[in-house]
Amino acid sequence: MKLLRVGTTGAERPALLDDAGVLRDLSGVVPDIDGALLADGAALGRVRDAAGAGELPALDANGLRIGPPVARVGKAVCIGLNYHDHARETGAPIPEEPIIFMKAADTVVGPDDTVLVPRGSEKTDWEVELAVVIGRTARYLVTHEEALAAVAGYAVAHDVSEREFQIERGGQWDKGKNCETFNPLGPWLVTADEVPDPQALGLRLWVNGELKQNGTTAEQIFPVAEVVRYVSRFMTLYPGDIINTGTPAGVAMGCPDPKPYLRPGDVVELEIDGLGRQRQQLKAA
Amino acid sequence: MKLLRVGTTGAERPALLDDAGVLRDLSGVVPDIDGALLADGAALGRVRDAAGAGELPALDANGLRIGPPVARVGKAVCIGLNYHDHARETGAPIPEEPIIFMKAADTVVGPDDTVLVPRGSEKTDWEVELAVVIGRTARYLVTHEEALAAVAGYAVAHDVSEREFQIERGGQWDKGKNCETFNPLGPWLVTADEVPDPQALGLRLWVNGELKQNGTTAEQIFPVAEVVRYVSRFMTLYPGDIINTGTPAGVAMGCPDPKPYLRPGDVVELEIDGLGRQRQQLKAA
Repeated sequence: MKLLRVGTTGAERPALLDDAGVLRDLSGVVPDIDGALLADGAALGRVRDAAGAGELPALDANGLRIGPPVARVGKAVCIGLNYHDHARETGAPIPEEPIIFMKAADTVVGPDDTVLVPRGSEKTDWEVELAVVIGRTARYLVTHEEALAAVAGYAVAHDVSEREFQIERGGQWDKGKNCETFNPLGPWLVTADEVPDPQALGLRLWVNGELKQNGTTAEQIFPVAEVVRYVSRFMTLYPGDIINTGTPAGVAMGCPDPKPYLRPGDVVELEIDGLGRQRQQLKAA
Repeated sequence: MKLLRVGTTGAERPALLDDAGVLRDLSGVVPDIDGALLADGAALGRVRDAAGAGELPALDANGLRIGPPVARVGKAVCIGLNYHDHARETGAPIPEEPIIFMKAADTVVGPDDTVLVPRGSEKTDWEVELAVVIGRTARYLVTHEEALAAVAGYAVAHDVSEREFQIERGGQWDKGKNCETFNPLGPWLVTADEVPDPQALGLRLWVNGELKQNGTTAEQIFPVAEVVRYVSRFMTLYPGDIINTGTPAGVAMGCPDPKPYLRPGDVVELEIDGLGRQRQQLKAA
């Protein structure tokens, strides 16, 4: 299923994109799409049954904003340098174990919402990423089977990053990862049953129409199952948490000087096979 | 005012500790103590009026669990190496600007709740910290006056840290800062009007009755007003967010070998002048 949330910020309603591409209203079946729903097999079953029975009213998608597909994201865990090609372009050694950093959940916005270039920023950069959405509490997992069983679904994430804040301002990457609007998510949460192999997904990102990133999750150093297993040994994952699993090569930081960092007015588009497409215009904060 | 939340985990009720040390029920006045309340001057005024009028029923504190004093913490921003004496003991240079890292809000527990030593941990360490609780949305603040106006109050925080995970496992500190139960908070949120000088507070921490940390916020490299102003330029702070403002000298990592890291069965007690006292027993995760 493709689950999404549509409407104005803070007043989104749950919806479903059916196999014919018609937007369907879910608000008569479930109150929202959030961690509680994703952890509730019976409620998800009701959604599936209603969709299958053709009972869901169609929604007019025209002009309707799409919000993040998960309400009340708990935490956004991020994996750094998780693609062979991206590690090469940054000149960093291949990590021996996953690098973890954090984004606050309040950085999550809809897939087509405005992204703000922070005040004082000279190095705002893009990163298309496969986001894993957690559907089951996960702590100290041992096997990859347990890890994949904790995954409710997948979505496109944009891990917007300010490189000077991240790397040149003393200390930890989080300083350049938590600016407001820095985590567009969606358009859809695609349930895991419809993503048979998360390691075979193409990811692409364009800036002002020019293709910048063109990778595949086959290049991930630590695949989704290992990322979820590993993270669960350092922190407890809860339904409604997300993990951004890293970006492939092609970010501005990896380009020769002068590096083409994002400026107000730029348009970024990104997509992942089967997970939909985002489009953001950059504006000054 | 000293605001707190009492009751079983997830079912706490709002309460107030009055000037005579009597616990008072606030549930007839406000639904909970959270970001929405802290941003609502009228609601805080009703609490103050009810307390002043002697209208609040007393609660029997006997055997009552104390929860974290803020429900639904948004994010927990942490400042690293923010005390001159702690920077010296770790051998780190004095930071030129604040070091920022993040804890997920789901690490927040009550002041006397069990703290879990993570599986595989050999280096679980303690850190008594002054937590700042945000009461007003803060972005791109310029002055220290604006910064202090965004502070709803203060609380004791325990920034529990696993040093091997933090420093020796490749990458960012967050890996050793986000284990479950790693952020005891409370017992009280003391409103800012009752903390006239946040840079004149003694902080103390004991392990199994032995004094380990005995510092003062006068040693902070970046005082509270500068921390809030600075952080607001990299991320937006919202009511109900907290900032852990760093720890003074005396952590296990700063001791000669063999360093006395925490083990299951240990008891940690910590307090800050005027903000109350915590007591946690360590158990194995």
